[in-house]
Amino acid sequence: MAGRKRAARADGDATRARLLEVAGQLFARLGYAGAANKAICEAAGTDLAAINYHFGGRDGLYQAVLFEGYEQLINLQKLKEIHARQDSAENKLSAAIDMIVDRLYDEGGWHGRVFARELVAPSTHLAALVREGVMPRFKLMSDILSEVTGFSAQDPALLRCVLSVIAPMLMMLVVDRDTPTPFRALMTRPADELKSHLKHFALAGLLATKEQASRRGS
Amino acid sequence: MAGRKRAARADGDATRARLLEVAGQLFARLGYAGAANKAICEAAGTDLAAINYHFGGRDGLYQAVLFEGYEQLINLQKLKEIHARQDSAENKLSAAIDMIVDRLYDEGGWHGRVFARELVAPSTHLAALVREGVMPRFKLMSDILSEVTGFSAQDPALLRCVLSVIAPMLMMLVVDRDTPTPFRALMTRPADELKSHLKHFALAGLLATKEQASRRGS
Repeated sequence: MAGRKRAARADGDATRARLLEVAGQLFARLGYAGAANKAICEAAGTDLAAINYHFGGRDGLYQAVLFEGYEQLINLQKLKEIHARQDSAENKLSAAIDMIVDRLYDEGGWHGRVFARELVAPSTHLAALVREGVMPRFKLMSDILSEVTGFSAQDPALLRCVLSVIAPMLMMLVVDRDTPTPFRALMTRPADELKSHLKHFALAGLLATKEQASRRGS
Repeated sequence: MAGRKRAARADGDATRARLLEVAGQLFARLGYAGAANKAICEAAGTDLAAINYHFGGRDGLYQAVLFEGYEQLINLQKLKEIHARQDSAENKLSAAIDMIVDRLYDEGGWHGRVFARELVAPSTHLAALVREGVMPRFKLMSDILSEVTGFSAQDPALLRCVLSVIAPMLMMLVVDRDTPTPFRALMTRPADELKSHLKHFALAGLLATKEQASRRGS
């Protein structure tokens, strides 16, 4: 009996995961309004009731796609581990850049596009996503950059530094690989070139900003 | 007679401009599918035929909104003037940053959001917008950064530098002021602070990248 229950649960988990993945791809390509429940269930090989059963309805499915996609875009646990390391702030920044650029080069990406769509055409879920998804990651990055620059968490100079460091990566993450921007050519080059560039550029910019602030302060 | 014709033409231009502005606001807020012709014409105070008369139809109106919005986001003529100045590359970069950040602080902005929507959910017009709108601006910025760094136009290192310099500004331009990202707090600070930060950060990053490349080359 217990074995059969476990098997049923495992089947359920697999169905839930399949729905999430298929819905993510379709919401990314067609938008929330354009991806009908019927199309999602057909592509996932489930009946229509599965959306209600696993997600409490279409809205719950979309919310799960949004949060799961963002989590796959930037893994919170990994970023926490990098932040907690006994290491220099420069090395932590380097590890965070490695992690985000590796994600960028991974294949399969509906994650960035669903997030980008939500940012430019917000649903009722954006506020919760920013609060529970964006902010914890933003705070960890702020913290690392505060260590590098000496700027306090309340200093607007720190916020500007976070913008300068993460914008290039964020832009590459959310603009779909099929979109014909000039920057897509970077993806045909090895990931290490982009990582090395982003690290050098960021560190030089951060140290110059720190130095300029200390000159002003003295 | 000539006077009456001129007056009629001026009326027509004003109607066209009003339609463009109203449609821009509605497409930005509701998306292409969500902003009905009827709503646009009612808000602009015109009859429904005006869309066909001035833009050859709804698709032509959207295309005009997209191109006009992008032009207002980054003025090509001004960027050309900056590029053509008899001045150092560093000063040209500084002037380009001033121009883009000033635009960011200007009020009224549907321009960034229409462009962002088009980037994440492309229509048939995106390829032409990239070709005729994005690329000429991208080439001018590349040119200026090539002068700063010494990287040739074909060097992928130059493309990475353009990404690092423009991504922070582009991100601020396309994310709507109402969207609750942490970076919106920067807009409550004086524009000069952001300009000064972006210039120092960019220049330090560019010079470090140039130096690193020349060390590798030697």
